[in-house]
Amino acid sequence: MEATYRALCEHGYADLTMQDIADEAGRSKSLLHYHYDTKEGLFVAFFDYLLDSFEARVADGDDGLSARERLLSLVALLTVDDEEEARLHQALLELRTQAPYNDAYQQQLRRTKNALQTLIADVIADGVESGEFRDVDPESTARFVLAALDGARSSRVTLGDDADTEAVRDGIRRFVLDDLTR
Amino acid sequence: MEATYRALCEHGYADLTMQDIADEAGRSKSLLHYHYDTKEGLFVAFFDYLLDSFEARVADGDDGLSARERLLSLVALLTVDDEEEARLHQALLELRTQAPYNDAYQQQLRRTKNALQTLIADVIADGVESGEFRDVDPESTARFVLAALDGARSSRVTLGDDADTEAVRDGIRRFVLDDLTR
Repeated sequence: MEATYRALCEHGYADLTMQDIADEAGRSKSLLHYHYDTKEGLFVAFFDYLLDSFEARVADGDDGLSARERLLSLVALLTVDDEEEARLHQALLELRTQAPYNDAYQQQLRRTKNALQTLIADVIADGVESGEFRDVDPESTARFVLAALDGARSSRVTLGDDADTEAVRDGIRRFVLDDLTR
Repeated sequence: MEATYRALCEHGYADLTMQDIADEAGRSKSLLHYHYDTKEGLFVAFFDYLLDSFEARVADGDDGLSARERLLSLVALLTVDDEEEARLHQALLELRTQAPYNDAYQQQLRRTKNALQTLIADVIADGVESGEFRDVDPESTARFVLAALDGARSSRVTLGDDADTEAVRDGIRRFVLDDLTR
């Protein structure tokens, strides 16, 4: 999975071969095929790996924080900070454009997106429950926040535009969070 | 340009050939090449065409509206409403993933995005100027709104998820516009 990460960053998605990933892992292509029948199967597993790593990082720093702080920490984790992350998300965007033609990708992308959405919605629901946030629909608000973060990532990876990342971080703070805690 | 629109909706971006577009236009491929040296040159022109059509639709309905109404009308124009628009935006997303490898695309996508951003920022600046909106940074707010709309379109075209479109429309209304007019 780490080799897949590095190979995606290096080669992008469209031109990536099982051989590239095997080379990156320092293993044979036949060993790779022993574990994953197809490139598609490997990428479906790779999304599970990305989501697991993400959830581990979220759980790590969650103790004793307010809902506002937890949401800001999720926002920070979901923005592209450096060139390596930008290259990964560029490859993931290429892969996502295949989803309309590929059921396995589409199902996996839906699962991954639902998991992220639930993480954010749960923080908002906790904030509403504790009275820290005013009463809003956690799911719809989570969808709005995730869409803005996704737009910022797309702009970063396709245009190299960092200003959108900053504007979205700022917008979530000023419009969403300030409103929730008003 | 209309034939390019139809051909993109039908074939997507990745597999589209000059022949497909010529067929859709009912013209010869050599006539198409007379006007556009490359597929790339044709798509750069196609983005100008899309932007011109968009700006014409905006200018059309702009008279006597409040800044809030003008912003909501821009939001409506920038969301995917039907299958044809979804197919077009799916093709455009495929094309956008080529921008990191293609300078002509990247420059054109920057120009198009800046034009949309300016349209939205101008409405916000007008609202601030007239006192309808509180004082915010029009450019940063426009970037936030555009990013959310872009995320909603990506989710619609890659996952077929309409709920994000609704959540983003709702989020812009409840969090951004209600805050601006508070």
